[in-house]
Amino acid sequence: MDIVMDAEALNAFLGREFPQVAGEYRVERVDPDLLTARLTVGEAHLRPGGTISGPSIFALADLAIYCAILARIGPVALAVTTNASVDFMRKPEADRDLRAECRVLKLGRVLAVAEALIYSEGGTEPVARCSMTYSIPPKS
Amino acid sequence: MDIVMDAEALNAFLGREFPQVAGEYRVERVDPDLLTARLTVGEAHLRPGGTISGPSIFALADLAIYCAILARIGPVALAVTTNASVDFMRKPEADRDLRAECRVLKLGRVLAVAEALIYSEGGTEPVARCSMTYSIPPKS
Amino acid sequence: MDIVMDAEALNAFLGREFPQVAGEYRVERVDPDLLTARLTVGEAHLRPGGTISGPSIFALADLAIYCAILARIGPVALAVTTNASVDFMRKPEADRDLRAECRVLKLGRVLAVAEALIYSEGGTEPVARCSMTYSIPPKS
Amino acid sequence: MDIVMDAEALNAFLGREFPQVAGEYRVERVDPDLLTARLTVGEAHLRPGGTISGPSIFALADLAIYCAILARIGPVALAVTTNASVDFMRKPEADRDLRAECRVLKLGRVLAVAEALIYSEGGTEPVARCSMTYSIPPKS
Repeated sequence: MDIVMDAEALNAFLGREFPQVAGEYRVERVDPDLLTARLTVGEAHLRPGGTISGPSIFALADLAIYCAILARIGPVALAVTTNASVDFMRKPEADRDLRAECRVLKLGRVLAVAEALIYSEGGTEPVARCSMTYSIPPKS
Repeated sequence: MDIVMDAEALNAFLGREFPQVAGEYRVERVDPDLLTARLTVGEAHLRPGGTISGPSIFALADLAIYCAILARIGPVALAVTTNASVDFMRKPEADRDLRAECRVLKLGRVLAVAEALIYSEGGTEPVARCSMTYSIPPKS
Repeated sequence: MDIVMDAEALNAFLGREFPQVAGEYRVERVDPDLLTARLTVGEAHLRPGGTISGPSIFALADLAIYCAILARIGPVALAVTTNASVDFMRKPEADRDLRAECRVLKLGRVLAVAEALIYSEGGTEPVARCSMTYSIPPKS
Repeated sequence: MDIVMDAEALNAFLGREFPQVAGEYRVERVDPDLLTARLTVGEAHLRPGGTISGPSIFALADLAIYCAILARIGPVALAVTTNASVDFMRKPEADRDLRAECRVLKLGRVLAVAEALIYSEGGTEPVARCSMTYSIPPKS
């Protein structure tokens, strides 16, 4: 599938459409096979025991998968997550950013499916695995 | 299963352990069969198109399920989510709070499973369904 | 949502369309709120340790959810499962049939979401929980 | 993680412990990074419209993931699936076998997580994606 939005275009889109969170997230690289995105971990993402909250990990996976789909179909702000499945596997490092590596498995006319592995920056074993389905609105 | 923490005890626990988010969430009722919790929806939870973000819905489900388990086993801060599955089914109302209704399906020695339905306040059809598995740390 | 196929109509449909498996499964009751279906457990469903295989439990949940959707939209043989999430929570009894209790949570134009709890016949605690999304083909 | 059971040992184990299904499934290759297994598709796996049933796909994923875990921990017949999430993405070819490619993402003391992509033999796009959690019984 051709890439129609690169990292710069995706980050500009996030800044326009999601100003509440765009400062925390950054798309770093968009290849035909892999998109990588980063969450700059701050105080608000931390939890007792020196870890990062589940919802922060979920939010990074959601954003990375959304961007991986937009990279292929263009800036469709109203694509929505219909299903998400997450395995939280290891404790992330509280003092490191999180990195998502995302692959699109299916891009249909109506539904897209993608998965993301989440790593602590510098780590080689994933802290979480996430798969999501997005519903793509019909072209008007 | 007996209830060992009521709504007041759970809210006090959240305030102590999760001060970053405790102001947004409130356990409203704890029965043997059902726990209800509320997210006070604010600007940070909103998204384009007049809706509430997926991560905000996930966070409410996670908190409600965590509290439903603690209500039965007591204040074990280190219980952790190992798996979550969410279906986002309807668009929530941007100008209403979200309410979670949570049921514990299994409370084992090592794993607990619970599910939550999420509603816009005053609504009768769920905006989301979520099931989660929690890993319970061994007693020391 | 109105019921347009009752248990008899669903069982006749299964016999016509799924002759390979229709003998094992039976829809027992179709109410607006709840569909119940049964798997007659036989040798082929058993596994070591006196239990019933995961795929047998999955198949019962899939069939019950499919029927619960057809009960509302009529005999659309080509509705397909797009996502399934299952929690296996307790060991089923090898010498009892399995019963599914299924609820439809959303019936949209394109997607339907339903969930099923699976019980050993006579049991009160579910052996498994399952949620599924079905894609509904457009009317031609 | 070291491999302690190769394909031959796993197939012999399946033949002993799961005689009902061992003829249909075959582990083909076990590498440190990837296990591949095959379902020989027969009449019992087919469904209307020239496709393969969801439960057959689920069963292949379950078997491949089980074997990928046993390859690392040895013949522990009582490891059990606690959670499964499946995305059915494309219609499999009715006249081709199915191939599972399975990766272990976490092998903990108590829980293991793995995922499988399922392909029609000769195909390059996955028909399904599956992730599962297994509970590993304590060593006695």
